[in-house]
Amino acid sequence: MAHDMEDSRRRALIGLLTDFGDLDTYVGVMKAIIAGIAPSAAVIDLGHRIRPGDIRQAAFQLWQVADKFPAGSVLVVVVDPGVGTARRAVACQWRQMVLVGPDNGVFTYLLAIESASAAVVLAEPRFHHTPVSATFHGRDIFAPVAAHLAGGTPLKELGPAANGLQQFELPLLERLGADGLSGEVVHVDAFGNLITTLGRLRHDADGCALAPWLPKSEPGVFHGEGAALLPDGFELPLMTTFGDVAPGEPVAYLGSEGLLEIGVRGGSAAERFALTVGAPIQLRFRG
Amino acid sequence: MAHDMEDSRRRALIGLLTDFGDLDTYVGVMKAIIAGIAPSAAVIDLGHRIRPGDIRQAAFQLWQVADKFPAGSVLVVVVDPGVGTARRAVACQWRQMVLVGPDNGVFTYLLAIESASAAVVLAEPRFHHTPVSATFHGRDIFAPVAAHLAGGTPLKELGPAANGLQQFELPLLERLGADGLSGEVVHVDAFGNLITTLGRLRHDADGCALAPWLPKSEPGVFHGEGAALLPDGFELPLMTTFGDVAPGEPVAYLGSEGLLEIGVRGGSAAERFALTVGAPIQLRFRG
Amino acid sequence: MAHDMEDSRRRALIGLLTDFGDLDTYVGVMKAIIAGIAPSAAVIDLGHRIRPGDIRQAAFQLWQVADKFPAGSVLVVVVDPGVGTARRAVACQWRQMVLVGPDNGVFTYLLAIESASAAVVLAEPRFHHTPVSATFHGRDIFAPVAAHLAGGTPLKELGPAANGLQQFELPLLERLGADGLSGEVVHVDAFGNLITTLGRLRHDADGCALAPWLPKSEPGVFHGEGAALLPDGFELPLMTTFGDVAPGEPVAYLGSEGLLEIGVRGGSAAERFALTVGAPIQLRFRG
Repeated sequence: MAHDMEDSRRRALIGLLTDFGDLDTYVGVMKAIIAGIAPSAAVIDLGHRIRPGDIRQAAFQLWQVADKFPAGSVLVVVVDPGVGTARRAVACQWRQMVLVGPDNGVFTYLLAIESASAAVVLAEPRFHHTPVSATFHGRDIFAPVAAHLAGGTPLKELGPAANGLQQFELPLLERLGADGLSGEVVHVDAFGNLITTLGRLRHDADGCALAPWLPKSEPGVFHGEGAALLPDGFELPLMTTFGDVAPGEPVAYLGSEGLLEIGVRGGSAAERFALTVGAPIQLRFRG
Repeated sequence: MAHDMEDSRRRALIGLLTDFGDLDTYVGVMKAIIAGIAPSAAVIDLGHRIRPGDIRQAAFQLWQVADKFPAGSVLVVVVDPGVGTARRAVACQWRQMVLVGPDNGVFTYLLAIESASAAVVLAEPRFHHTPVSATFHGRDIFAPVAAHLAGGTPLKELGPAANGLQQFELPLLERLGADGLSGEVVHVDAFGNLITTLGRLRHDADGCALAPWLPKSEPGVFHGEGAALLPDGFELPLMTTFGDVAPGEPVAYLGSEGLLEIGVRGGSAAERFALTVGAPIQLRFRG
Repeated sequence: MAHDMEDSRRRALIGLLTDFGDLDTYVGVMKAIIAGIAPSAAVIDLGHRIRPGDIRQAAFQLWQVADKFPAGSVLVVVVDPGVGTARRAVACQWRQMVLVGPDNGVFTYLLAIESASAAVVLAEPRFHHTPVSATFHGRDIFAPVAAHLAGGTPLKELGPAANGLQQFELPLLERLGADGLSGEVVHVDAFGNLITTLGRLRHDADGCALAPWLPKSEPGVFHGEGAALLPDGFELPLMTTFGDVAPGEPVAYLGSEGLLEIGVRGGSAAERFALTVGAPIQLRFRG
């Protein structure tokens, strides 16, 4: 990252993803701490409406954004139900960016794509906002550490090496005989679109290989025809976009991240089908 | 715009108006894409809570903010229910700023004030984030194009000329005999204030002329006395501000954009009167 | 502040705290006005979800963030139910930062810590966005004034001296015999944690002295053991953090600002105990 900082045109970039909501000043306080340490860093809000303590949702949203950031960025996740307990606060080098947050699984999808090349426990008090509280490490540890990283402090100075970062079990995605895949809803977005684990597929000698958390720099999407199968047997042929169906009608399509999504044009698929995260969805190949 | 970029004190300014809400990372992703292309650009959130797909609300909010931006700004609207269909993605030079978004009417009020001096279809892939998805042109077309514009790319390089930008029919505002105006609620703000089409009035030889979407640089507000008439016949004399009535009482006033608004001091007029966008409101002149 | 501006590394910092919500463009308009006047200033959102017109909540949230900002920052509060009436628009030098907002009590907690060293009425039209509306001083007075301050304009040029800034009566916090304190809930955060007036305690010759709005640079927290007593007699021993109790269980702890808080691990204490701002809470000392 250090060499990137030498590019005077480029301001260091810090992304923030939390479950702090927008009713409090918690996010603003983190930004004030960052500005005091790294005045020229730019902060981008990735979102602050993660369901409180929902580590899996945070991990998914971090996966959605990470490859859109330029090299040298620092991505901070504060979804931290174990704050103040023995869970470690960590930072790790992941490709050309640094991830910062609690060691509770929030980096799972990214680490499934590629391991961290280095990781440390954030144990050096000189990079913290002291005294460190027991309940707000976003302010006292993660924000100041991110600012120091953005300012050029090498990762290894932040604390001793950390081994074995926590990762949760990846959600369901498996072959269903020769002609389909079995997966589940992994996220419901604000429009009520159901985003599934089914996608980022790559054709290979076998006809079709699963590659759910495939590095996005090698996009290889499912090109055949197919249909989504909902839990109650309802079947939706794969379309390209919302405009391919009439207003109010449901539609299945490969979303902007290459994952199968179920939507309703001008409406909410989550409401229409009463489905949420974890609901089983199948993708049947055709043609 | 290019000459503006040469002022080293001024950072290029990009305003973002979307219906993406705050539950997802869609806005953060757009900012990451922008930061990767134009690191020194500053992004201002105009709002991300437009009702999903509500083109008219987006057009009104864009009108509210546009003349507050300095010359050289780039204003991006992503309220785009037709994403991925044949609707065009466009950018246009409007006065001293550039508007970027889908060609679906979101620029209607601004174009009613003054036509675009140039417009292009965003067809040049080298200014896009590729591969372009069918459902997220905010990320793949509008954000990178805005960043290139902020970085100094001339409008005409972005694609071929676009003629006949879409505009919807302006909401009701007409003379009501000699002593009044007939209009409608055009927006309900977060406080529950009802903002109407009635206003930005200019006295002329005829006594009073309508000029609903009058260029704001020529402010000419209604100076006579008057009263707002609600659909059920309830009449509210025009006051100056909320403090002119007792707590809990309704009040009519010319709002900060010169439009007649109906409010309730410390409460919501939308709730009190059970009115929303489209409700007919009259303004009766007096004195 | 002027000397601070000479530090080329440091961009002027403006914090914004309002009750404008996120459904409208009001905050975006303020930022556009600021960017037009002080292009290099950085704006930090402290929050825009203050309950409409709730001056006491704004004052509390401002107190939470103020000492996290670097010297030279400008903090703007627009919670302004009296906008357009005789209430004054003011700015004051408070320690090494400048506070800007309506003179209605929003600075109460900060002024209880330390008086303003200078204060002015914002009466100079050349620092305003004109014509000044009667209902949106955030856009027309507070934003442009903050931008001019961030750009280096001395406080005293903004208008004549202001005496006797408004302050509301501080919430309840008193000794309860020798072994306890009586206070109240002063804030409920987005997680449903109940934040009380009980805290920032300092041991002195008398055993324990109250210092509710103690300067935070002299942290002196209650080190003894104790318990929180809820209105219905429910008693919670003081713990360190959420992880000290089982999921779903209530917990009392000294929060990140040194105030007694009541939470529920993975849940909402406000819902569990049906308590809100103003509810009486006691802290009983032990050991």
